[in-house]
Amino acid sequence: MSKQAERADPGCCAPLAVRPMAVEQAAEVAPMFKALGDPVRLRLMSMIASVPEMCVCDLTPAFELSGPTISHHLRVLREAGLVDSERRGTWVWYRVRPAAFRQLGALLALPASVPAGT
Amino acid sequence: MSKQAERADPGCCAPLAVRPMAVEQAAEVAPMFKALGDPVRLRLMSMIASVPEMCVCDLTPAFELSGPTISHHLRVLREAGLVDSERRGTWVWYRVRPAAFRQLGALLALPASVPAGT
Repeated sequence: MSKQAERADPGCCAPLAVRPMAVEQAAEVAPMFKALGDPVRLRLMSMIASVPEMCVCDLTPAFELSGPTISHHLRVLREAGLVDSERRGTWVWYRVRPAAFRQLGALLALPASVPAGT
Repeated sequence: MSKQAERADPGCCAPLAVRPMAVEQAAEVAPMFKALGDPVRLRLMSMIASVPEMCVCDLTPAFELSGPTISHHLRVLREAGLVDSERRGTWVWYRVRPAAFRQLGALLALPASVPAGT
């Protein structure tokens, strides 16, 4: 199993709010949150996640940034295990890794007993 | 309404996978993910979220880090709108901001039609 696939195991993570997180799990998950902690990467992520797959040739024109800068951000997302990529001819295509998304979402789940609060 | 409360509005955010995220929303949410993108802060967050509230005097001994370092990480979490703090006498107490958690969790939700994948 690749390192990315291990990171994306959706069964590994009890919600943050259930019990204190183990050191190893925190080290494994933090890079995924860190990858989302940038506005450009969040927008790239949402563009990719909104469709089955997306060509880098359609991502780059949406930003006022150079191709290499977009490629850098896409590499961060891929290395964090949040997207997969595949080269076909000239272009690279990206798609979301659903298990990674679900793992992060599960971590952020709060028990229903927690009031809405602020 | 405070800046933190605005950020924690749970009604503001369609899931990432529904439509591309607006520039303004990405700029607003990225700091919350960035705050979680550190193993120590993730562990602090899970310790705080596991109980109704927690004293900094119980958080610090759980880490092999100095008091000022722990305080720095707690400040990042607070400034990102993920926790609230309250000083009572000598100690500061922290509690999770449920709306902020729910906002991030909602962003990461995937449509049920998305296959489990890897």
